[in-house]
Amino acid sequence: MVSTKTVSGERFHVLYRLTGDEATAYARATDICLEQTVELPDDLVPNGLVRDHVVGRVETFEPLAPGYFQSTISFAVETVGRDLPQLLNVLFGNVSIKPGIRIERLVLPDSWLCTFQGPRFGRAGLRARLGIARRPLLCTPLKPMGLAADQLGQLAFHFALGGIDIIKDDHGLADQHFAPFRERVASCAQAVARANHETGEQCIYMPNITGPADEILGRALFAKEHGAGGLLIAPGLTGLDTMRRLADDDRIALPIMSHPAFQGSFVTNPHGGVSHYTLFGQLARLAGADASIFPNFGGRFSFSRDECLGIADGTAAPMGTIKPIFPTPAGGMRLARAREMIEIYGHQVILLIGGDLYRHGADLVTTGRKFREQVEHVMESYAGDAHE
Amino acid sequence: MVSTKTVSGERFHVLYRLTGDEATAYARATDICLEQTVELPDDLVPNGLVRDHVVGRVETFEPLAPGYFQSTISFAVETVGRDLPQLLNVLFGNVSIKPGIRIERLVLPDSWLCTFQGPRFGRAGLRARLGIARRPLLCTPLKPMGLAADQLGQLAFHFALGGIDIIKDDHGLADQHFAPFRERVASCAQAVARANHETGEQCIYMPNITGPADEILGRALFAKEHGAGGLLIAPGLTGLDTMRRLADDDRIALPIMSHPAFQGSFVTNPHGGVSHYTLFGQLARLAGADASIFPNFGGRFSFSRDECLGIADGTAAPMGTIKPIFPTPAGGMRLARAREMIEIYGHQVILLIGGDLYRHGADLVTTGRKFREQVEHVMESYAGDAHE
Repeated sequence: MVSTKTVSGERFHVLYRLTGDEATAYARATDICLEQTVELPDDLVPNGLVRDHVVGRVETFEPLAPGYFQSTISFAVETVGRDLPQLLNVLFGNVSIKPGIRIERLVLPDSWLCTFQGPRFGRAGLRARLGIARRPLLCTPLKPMGLAADQLGQLAFHFALGGIDIIKDDHGLADQHFAPFRERVASCAQAVARANHETGEQCIYMPNITGPADEILGRALFAKEHGAGGLLIAPGLTGLDTMRRLADDDRIALPIMSHPAFQGSFVTNPHGGVSHYTLFGQLARLAGADASIFPNFGGRFSFSRDECLGIADGTAAPMGTIKPIFPTPAGGMRLARAREMIEIYGHQVILLIGGDLYRHGADLVTTGRKFREQVEHVMESYAGDAHE
Repeated sequence: MVSTKTVSGERFHVLYRLTGDEATAYARATDICLEQTVELPDDLVPNGLVRDHVVGRVETFEPLAPGYFQSTISFAVETVGRDLPQLLNVLFGNVSIKPGIRIERLVLPDSWLCTFQGPRFGRAGLRARLGIARRPLLCTPLKPMGLAADQLGQLAFHFALGGIDIIKDDHGLADQHFAPFRERVASCAQAVARANHETGEQCIYMPNITGPADEILGRALFAKEHGAGGLLIAPGLTGLDTMRRLADDDRIALPIMSHPAFQGSFVTNPHGGVSHYTLFGQLARLAGADASIFPNFGGRFSFSRDECLGIADGTAAPMGTIKPIFPTPAGGMRLARAREMIEIYGHQVILLIGGDLYRHGADLVTTGRKFREQVEHVMESYAGDAHE
């Protein structure tokens, strides 16, 4: 059956890392071309448009390291349309189930990227909103699950008085009876507003709106209406496109922070999945996150330094009109590492410290101030040098 | 800070497989208890409700195989509420990022399960809808991407004439200009209705409604209105709870088939992720799928026979009021394996054969009939024996 349709000729490119000897790896590359598009064996592919344009194309294939090859495969933009889930589907839908295939990097044409809004704020927009020109942004989570809404509000009040810029819900705070969503959001947003009134600062509260598919939008609108200054969402739990949909909604128009919960399985297998760079950098950006949380190396998770720097690269690499966003290393970070983290990531970073702030005693205002002073002190030592 | 709240005492249980020697594996188990709830080191956990009830509990811990241990950990149902994404979050949110932790099985209390509807049809409901009492159901996909809507409709017409029960979109058919969603759905649903009129059968067409977060519901309602008899969705692309939301919607009330695209990374790493049993069995059911597609062993994917049988178990294991659903092995299946598949899975199965039906030449009506006859023939040979 010969298709009656045509295509533009515009294609996007995906760099895959393939495990195996040369013959095995090459077979994986040619298999991707069929599996991700027509899902038919080569001899059943109709000639004409389907064979010539719809089937993926191996554009490059070369050795990478012993036992690994890399291959760039291109796909017609028409296989995807303007549909983010369908992009994921063509990149990795069925081959996610096959061994020895890992996505390293996407190269998306500007003409296609410009149909996506991406992050509404990005680095510059979030800085403008917080009134912070240059230093890293400071963030801390409200925890633990089990506290009541007024107790969480009290923590938020103290952290905001102490000079933290972004106070977010722990990602485990959903809509439990301990601190129901609406009660918690009202309590914490009011607490932060009260503290801002005292300090003259512009601290924001980001509630976690991850939840049932039919309640997320309502939670986001409620949060906006009740004074939240941003939203936290875990796209691994909601679907990546739910984040994009919130970022695109003009009624919400709040900065979005992406949390990596339930996404770990994509990155922890060296022989499969998606690279840290692509998942927490490129895809988070494409789906509208203004900040992408990931577990920093040397904390209680197991990402390597290179993987973390890959994420930071992915948050800022050229990507058409899509804005750069904040890498947000977290996960067992300590106040004492603030200097090291700034040295590694530069000043375009959100430093997210949780448990270690709670460790410094009950006076969270003083602890917050200590965090802020430490970062400002590091920045002073860089003032005027090239570490911009 | 002491919480002012209380809990019911009701808990759910998760069986984890942990990699490492005894000390390492036990440390993983105790870490899960904190990481998945309070996200604080043990010495910072508040006494009282948080320590006594919110933190997870190691209920069992025992050796499984050399280098592996298994541990049942329980969590208070209040950590989750009635929220499926939050269930995933507590089970596996942060520890998805840690190595050596795999979910083997969930044990959810009936009092909690009864707050979920689960599959609207299940095995019995889908059989009633199709008018098929006993034999396996036959399914085939429309493909390849690149054909126009009328061409796909023609394929659907022929397969329906040939006696296939369920004709679904290939999961790569989204809303591309080759065969735009609305055009395709109208064309294929009409074609199947026309064939049913000729044959007197009750074949159904299941379009793929996977798409942007803000368009899925609209696509589902359009499909319903235009005569689709079911829906195909890839929850790995949309988020699992989006499927639950569709299954729960009384305006839609169509059988749902779940496709595994983009979920592979959860199951392909033996040292992490989620078991086949839980992901494609328990979770697919909880999220409302009436049939769960997975790549059969011996096809072009790499699941083992045991993993596939684990999925089949998960589709029917006791689960409160949640109905059993159809395992739907697929992925490079051949007509010639129909007998073997029935011998393995029994008659409570959907046999999904794609490419191999296209391989038997242009006369798809005859090919469909051959598939149907082959299955009926196998069933006759079992008639009256214990293979129910």
